[in-house]
Amino acid sequence: MSEGLEYQQKNMPFRRLGSSGLRVPVLSLGGWLTFGGTVTSDPAKEIIKTALENGINMFDEAEEYNKGKSEAELRFFPESSGRILRELNVRRGDLIITTKIFWGTRPGPNNGGLSRKHIIEGLRESLVRLQTDYVDVVFAHRADVHVPMLEVVRAFSWVIDQGLAYYWGTSEWAAQQIEEAIQIATQYGLHAPVAEQCQYSLLHRERPEAEYASLYKKYGYGTTIFSALYFGFLTGKYNDGIPAGTRFDNHKDNFRTIIEKLETEEGQRQIAQVKELTSLAQKELDCTVAQLALAWVLRNPNTSTIILGATRPEQLLSNLKAIEVYPKLTSGIMDRIEKILGNKPPEPATYGRPQLDPLGR
Amino acid sequence: MSEGLEYQQKNMPFRRLGSSGLRVPVLSLGGWLTFGGTVTSDPAKEIIKTALENGINMFDEAEEYNKGKSEAELRFFPESSGRILRELNVRRGDLIITTKIFWGTRPGPNNGGLSRKHIIEGLRESLVRLQTDYVDVVFAHRADVHVPMLEVVRAFSWVIDQGLAYYWGTSEWAAQQIEEAIQIATQYGLHAPVAEQCQYSLLHRERPEAEYASLYKKYGYGTTIFSALYFGFLTGKYNDGIPAGTRFDNHKDNFRTIIEKLETEEGQRQIAQVKELTSLAQKELDCTVAQLALAWVLRNPNTSTIILGATRPEQLLSNLKAIEVYPKLTSGIMDRIEKILGNKPPEPATYGRPQLDPLGR
Amino acid sequence: MSEGLEYQQKNMPFRRLGSSGLRVPVLSLGGWLTFGGTVTSDPAKEIIKTALENGINMFDEAEEYNKGKSEAELRFFPESSGRILRELNVRRGDLIITTKIFWGTRPGPNNGGLSRKHIIEGLRESLVRLQTDYVDVVFAHRADVHVPMLEVVRAFSWVIDQGLAYYWGTSEWAAQQIEEAIQIATQYGLHAPVAEQCQYSLLHRERPEAEYASLYKKYGYGTTIFSALYFGFLTGKYNDGIPAGTRFDNHKDNFRTIIEKLETEEGQRQIAQVKELTSLAQKELDCTVAQLALAWVLRNPNTSTIILGATRPEQLLSNLKAIEVYPKLTSGIMDRIEKILGNKPPEPATYGRPQLDPLGR
Amino acid sequence: MSEGLEYQQKNMPFRRLGSSGLRVPVLSLGGWLTFGGTVTSDPAKEIIKTALENGINMFDEAEEYNKGKSEAELRFFPESSGRILRELNVRRGDLIITTKIFWGTRPGPNNGGLSRKHIIEGLRESLVRLQTDYVDVVFAHRADVHVPMLEVVRAFSWVIDQGLAYYWGTSEWAAQQIEEAIQIATQYGLHAPVAEQCQYSLLHRERPEAEYASLYKKYGYGTTIFSALYFGFLTGKYNDGIPAGTRFDNHKDNFRTIIEKLETEEGQRQIAQVKELTSLAQKELDCTVAQLALAWVLRNPNTSTIILGATRPEQLLSNLKAIEVYPKLTSGIMDRIEKILGNKPPEPATYGRPQLDPLGR
Repeated sequence: MSEGLEYQQKNMPFRRLGSSGLRVPVLSLGGWLTFGGTVTSDPAKEIIKTALENGINMFDEAEEYNKGKSEAELRFFPESSGRILRELNVRRGDLIITTKIFWGTRPGPNNGGLSRKHIIEGLRESLVRLQTDYVDVVFAHRADVHVPMLEVVRAFSWVIDQGLAYYWGTSEWAAQQIEEAIQIATQYGLHAPVAEQCQYSLLHRERPEAEYASLYKKYGYGTTIFSALYFGFLTGKYNDGIPAGTRFDNHKDNFRTIIEKLETEEGQRQIAQVKELTSLAQKELDCTVAQLALAWVLRNPNTSTIILGATRPEQLLSNLKAIEVYPKLTSGIMDRIEKILGNKPPEPATYGRPQLDPLGR
Repeated sequence: MSEGLEYQQKNMPFRRLGSSGLRVPVLSLGGWLTFGGTVTSDPAKEIIKTALENGINMFDEAEEYNKGKSEAELRFFPESSGRILRELNVRRGDLIITTKIFWGTRPGPNNGGLSRKHIIEGLRESLVRLQTDYVDVVFAHRADVHVPMLEVVRAFSWVIDQGLAYYWGTSEWAAQQIEEAIQIATQYGLHAPVAEQCQYSLLHRERPEAEYASLYKKYGYGTTIFSALYFGFLTGKYNDGIPAGTRFDNHKDNFRTIIEKLETEEGQRQIAQVKELTSLAQKELDCTVAQLALAWVLRNPNTSTIILGATRPEQLLSNLKAIEVYPKLTSGIMDRIEKILGNKPPEPATYGRPQLDPLGR
Repeated sequence: MSEGLEYQQKNMPFRRLGSSGLRVPVLSLGGWLTFGGTVTSDPAKEIIKTALENGINMFDEAEEYNKGKSEAELRFFPESSGRILRELNVRRGDLIITTKIFWGTRPGPNNGGLSRKHIIEGLRESLVRLQTDYVDVVFAHRADVHVPMLEVVRAFSWVIDQGLAYYWGTSEWAAQQIEEAIQIATQYGLHAPVAEQCQYSLLHRERPEAEYASLYKKYGYGTTIFSALYFGFLTGKYNDGIPAGTRFDNHKDNFRTIIEKLETEEGQRQIAQVKELTSLAQKELDCTVAQLALAWVLRNPNTSTIILGATRPEQLLSNLKAIEVYPKLTSGIMDRIEKILGNKPPEPATYGRPQLDPLGR
Repeated sequence: MSEGLEYQQKNMPFRRLGSSGLRVPVLSLGGWLTFGGTVTSDPAKEIIKTALENGINMFDEAEEYNKGKSEAELRFFPESSGRILRELNVRRGDLIITTKIFWGTRPGPNNGGLSRKHIIEGLRESLVRLQTDYVDVVFAHRADVHVPMLEVVRAFSWVIDQGLAYYWGTSEWAAQQIEEAIQIATQYGLHAPVAEQCQYSLLHRERPEAEYASLYKKYGYGTTIFSALYFGFLTGKYNDGIPAGTRFDNHKDNFRTIIEKLETEEGQRQIAQVKELTSLAQKELDCTVAQLALAWVLRNPNTSTIILGATRPEQLLSNLKAIEVYPKLTSGIMDRIEKILGNKPPEPATYGRPQLDPLGR
């Protein structure tokens, strides 16, 4: 491995992916909306190279991203991004590659969902596109209410036992569904999921903070966070409407709900909050509001990694600065942010029973 | 319950006993060396009354303490200390009564140890002496290397299933033995032990802090601490030798090892440390070194309760002040104590492997 | 197999590797510090040939030894040491090849430790270097406190089920960790580890004799011993300081702790003991102190094999004589050694309970 | 407890009953053929008193012995032998009381055997006769080929879980049957049997030494030995035919096989052996051949206890001397006995495979 890469990696903090022994960088790179779509070929490789040089060795994909083209764009072995790996002396084992199964790439009643058939066939097709023998983690991209949980857990355990993946996780599952999966895995001696890929940001907290709270505590469940910038909203770029060429402008259909919300009273209140946070970021932390937003998510010990999107290397480099910011988030600053937002989910109810000593555990 | 008692109990912090749902007061009262021996009859009842009035509703006994007389002294129902309970309007359910089985009260090869025979017979005899149908927690007073762990776990599970106890725990077991007990309980669907009764103090840290570390983390194992004042050493009363009438003077045989240590270089260094701690306690926390020593043990979230001994009500009242002290132990003060002691056990070895982000979990 | 080799092997005693059915020679050859480092090419092959001719058919490696070069040096198939095997008519099945996974050969947060990822990837890379489809035993070179034990046990079970190894073991694990691994394996129907690779010698006894005692008894756990000569100390060559060209001289950093100990009171007492043992070895057993030290370790029935290091064939031949010595270690001589050392770890505590008949079991 | 009893007990060696934690005296007292039959009332109590005074606190019964009268004769609580217990200050917990279920006390197809019905009903009737709430160990007096093993194991587990017994064992079962019971118990999380009550003596060795060998090794199975004097034959009293008033004379039907054997060539050879052993006992060990015969059985570490019969206190006292003899049975004397007998069962076959190092394990 070149010294440059090694050096950079020393600056990248690593955390365990939930209850697993896998160490993931606190920032990782996702192919959503970009790879195989607006970003392909040489620009894609530039972003990947920038990521690797800065210690981001984890790449998140899904069979569904640009209908498989995103996975194919990433393809490290033996071609596509392979040249970069050789230049940087990176091997397969140095990388963490994850993908997600659910929507498939083609129509047809069994080309999607979490049947045993699609979990196995979908992952095999992903591996062909990614040109690797295995992914490090395969996620169930959503829960499938029409498949018994035992079948889902067994199928993910099977692909792990076949060596097609090392771990599996969930994405946007309800806490109850994760509970069922873990209990069934324990009961049947199967592999339990280790992490949830979920949305989490200053403006989206209920599920990741409150609904999942007991999963962190009981099972050490991990999280790979997406939309930590709330679809770009937390960069401040929508403070004055939707500029041309932005994600909301390019993908109006995908983001209709959020775009419509901008106009509502709640949307306007949130814009005001973003402005306050921008001021706090600049004055107290000498950083952008986007860097603050990422740092705030990293400050939560239940965050395993934030999956960054990027259309240009500079974007990635800018977001990387969040690593320097989050250790500076003192409890004083955290309290001020809380005061600006006023959206902290309540603690679990104890119904008037005497509280336990807060200095115990 | 009288309002007075109720009021006092509001000042007593409660913690869960390890992985159990039982809430224990952070300070409890033990019968070791006192009840049934030097302290009997009315003086004993005065101490019990003082304890109850101050929110200490947990009483720790053992079949072996004064060969059963300590349990008999405590006896709340229907006689002995019963009058106090009536006066204070305390019922059995308001109390947490624990005992410990191992040494028995009579000679004979099966009148002790952790065979199924003695666990069942020993506990039954304790219940007769205590005049109660059940204890809240029964501890294995030591490990018994001559009994297979499955037999031990099964026997304690059996007494719980019979209603003779609600929980069981261990006392001065090696971490390996606790690990085996918990794993076997899990495997066989039996009751796992929930807490360890161990020695822990400023001057005795290796086992409770380092050896048990993974048990706290993996199983939420609890601790009921004894000798938090290191056999009185941390009160400063042995700073200038052994005064007449103290425990070391009265029970020379029991404490020979510690008494002899007083003379050694290490003993002299510890006396110097006690003096430094005394000064810190007075100047910074306006308390005695004994109160600091108790507060320091309470500051560890892995402490469930400290078992206090007392020969006079005033002693108990003095120790109760530790409850006001431990919330004042800031990280700054904890660092200064660490510097005085220099006996912090090392973290578990990671053998040069990259460290995890300390702000993760 | 040539008759010569067959004949020699008849003189080599074999023992079961712990609870496994694998028969290991009581002496084996390790690549630590030598192969791929100071000893390469023809000299390495000469040592290997000498080992094989004398019945040592077990070779211990680790991914970490000389960063993979030690494994590559050993490489029997189809090249490197292959000629020797052909000459001696030795096939893969005639050999026992072991390796150890933990430190990896490259930096990077997942290129080491005991995550599922590194256990699988690390062993695969070792097999490539060793040019064999499987090792007989793969050891976890250390415990990894950041990986749940279930993940570790499952990953080692998986490589066994894939045919990449026949058995797995531990190295320098705490008894509690081995206990947890065995219990979890039992509970989940996975492969339990069969042996521990640990340090054991006349001067290092606490862990292998006392801490592991119950593992031998309950599980028949085996041991593959390293540093049976206490880093050369027990050859007597450091009796008068550190001669040039010795291991302590060549690898000052690795052995700093021991080198510094030489100067201490304890170090000086141990040198005096080595001198007494030297005299006993010469007068009573007509052997060197090194041969006595090895024989003493072999006299312990819980020793499965001693891993010898060697930089010259003569060294190996000299050490082989320990096989003739250990059957001569009568209880009388063992008592005299015990008296010289005075370092026998205490028996497990029974806390004053009546002892069992020593003539029973 | 009176000092006398306590003192005597210090001279009685105790062993674990097989894999259990129960400590049994190496000599115990059985009610077979005597209690409730030829020995009743005051003479019975004299024998019991002598036993207790000499550290024999274990009493072996069976529902079938004299059709229940033997159990009723023993009856310690609250009547019958109760006076002795009070005199000696012995409580129920100080005693080990065992019984055996199989033949029942009345005719009828379900008044015997090992159906769930008879195990439960038979034991309950025994407890009534014995006037105790539980026995320490309940044995299956024979195997019942008409009851599935799962039913047998479940029924014995059930009586243990009900508190009617602490442990269960087998009597004169084939090794295969014990194997099946232990495996089923492990598989279903039930109580496994801990010991076998079997015949074992200088003249009856095949089953206890060879057939059960792997049960001792794998499961630590225990043995409670009967007929250690080969039905009195090893006292020498039948050397010159059957004297009037002896057991063979009184119970001709029970012992027909053995009586007839006396006349055969083998019988005559055994008488010659008894004479040789008598000479060895007198000259080398200053004891009787009966004491030697008992000592020889105790010398086997797989013996947990020998159940003695007695019709007079003097007989018991004479047999007790075996405790002083067995530690004197050196390997030299054991070899001479082996040479006299020539009946050592062969080691398990290894079919020409290389042997393991005898100094390993």
